[in-house]
Amino acid sequence: MRVAVRFGYLGDHFAGSQLQPAGRTVEGEFIDACVRLGLFSDRRDARVAFAGRTDRGVHARGQVAALSTSEGEQTVRYLTHHLPADIWCNGIAVVPDAFHPRKAALARTYRYYFHPRGHDLAVMDQAAAVFHGTHDFSRFARLSPGKDPRRTVISCRVAGTGDLGVITVTAESFLWHMVRCIASALLAAGEGSGTAEGIRARLTGADSRPVPPASPYGLVLWDVDCGVHWDPVEPSERSARRMAGLCDYHGVMRGIIRDLPGRGG
Amino acid sequence: MRVAVRFGYLGDHFAGSQLQPAGRTVEGEFIDACVRLGLFSDRRDARVAFAGRTDRGVHARGQVAALSTSEGEQTVRYLTHHLPADIWCNGIAVVPDAFHPRKAALARTYRYYFHPRGHDLAVMDQAAAVFHGTHDFSRFARLSPGKDPRRTVISCRVAGTGDLGVITVTAESFLWHMVRCIASALLAAGEGSGTAEGIRARLTGADSRPVPPASPYGLVLWDVDCGVHWDPVEPSERSARRMAGLCDYHGVMRGIIRDLPGRGG
Repeated sequence: MRVAVRFGYLGDHFAGSQLQPAGRTVEGEFIDACVRLGLFSDRRDARVAFAGRTDRGVHARGQVAALSTSEGEQTVRYLTHHLPADIWCNGIAVVPDAFHPRKAALARTYRYYFHPRGHDLAVMDQAAAVFHGTHDFSRFARLSPGKDPRRTVISCRVAGTGDLGVITVTAESFLWHMVRCIASALLAAGEGSGTAEGIRARLTGADSRPVPPASPYGLVLWDVDCGVHWDPVEPSERSARRMAGLCDYHGVMRGIIRDLPGRGG
Repeated sequence: MRVAVRFGYLGDHFAGSQLQPAGRTVEGEFIDACVRLGLFSDRRDARVAFAGRTDRGVHARGQVAALSTSEGEQTVRYLTHHLPADIWCNGIAVVPDAFHPRKAALARTYRYYFHPRGHDLAVMDQAAAVFHGTHDFSRFARLSPGKDPRRTVISCRVAGTGDLGVITVTAESFLWHMVRCIASALLAAGEGSGTAEGIRARLTGADSRPVPPASPYGLVLWDVDCGVHWDPVEPSERSARRMAGLCDYHGVMRGIIRDLPGRGG
């Protein structure tokens, strides 16, 4: 049976998603959990494949992996309990034997969260529309030599969510650092140090200066549309507890840091 | 000249405040910065002394150090620029030659920040009053053998600040883990799993079960009253920038984690 698993993770404590000889990786932890659960013993035999790579510090809500196993669907549902607390499954689907999540991906959506201190979200949303369509993203990416710099952005929007701002970008596929460079350009537009015209000039090549990428910690691989209908899986209680604890931790740290620098009494 | 320096730090990346052979410590970084600035070359000759120790992960806003130097007051004001970005000065004072901040301390104030999810702050504040006065804090501390377990709490209050709750405790001095144990008992009272009577029973010894300490990251050494009038010092720009960046980081992480676990679209 070939099965696709949709899963999320917090990127803080990973040296990126992709398997590498040294350092804790998302793929490494995912594969180890599968082996512990007995889904397979060799990742090559199981043809384990992932929809995409994320850099060090980047999070995911909808990363997709595929694997082949002789175990049943019910066993795969236990995978979430074998993963470390900072990775959790949220969907599974039985897929055709040839399924590869990267090749099956019709569109990917990233979200970039930011603190909207002094940023005009409406101006950012207008500037975001400039990215729609097919463009040469050379100025908005770290390109490997010979790589086609053209990509098609299906949607790019900016909105508020709670006390944060969020940029949501959907494209058929992305270049390396592309979302972080788009975010950086939109943040500049939102604080008045950049404009929609400046973005257009860089997309047409009239301005050849590269845009620097925004910091990674705000970036989330939100969704990969593989044309699959996901059967929902709950995160483990351990993972849910850890996430609630981390949410409190970050909220408390923010409050403390806000109060600390004052010289006060 | 003997000078007292009032300074703050973020405890995240320190193995505690106290100097130790291995591991980054607040005292170690503070002394290194003084040596780099040329305030002294030997900490023993300079009779460097600190008002108190804080554990791994505990922050400070009003820690106090004293040191002797042949440099002038203006040079000491530069110290904040020689400290790492997670330590910053906020006051200095010329003091008598015999000044020792631990011995001079009339009172210390700690704050404990927490996320008030489901906690009744009014109930907590009422329970906090039970701590006022002189009590045997054996059940609210990690005691070294032979240590006097009696301490005098001058004030203990619970209030809201922004979206967080904060416990503010002032005492002449504290036992090890005492604030974290007080916080733990008050948090239990606030969520209904403990009561003011339960706290009283532990203070009188009617209930001999120890209270576990709350997690360290919410704890801030807020102020040490050494009877000194502080001449204000501004944190370095580098430190202010780092703190603003960290405040954003924690705010963004909280928002991301809040949104992440949902299985969604």
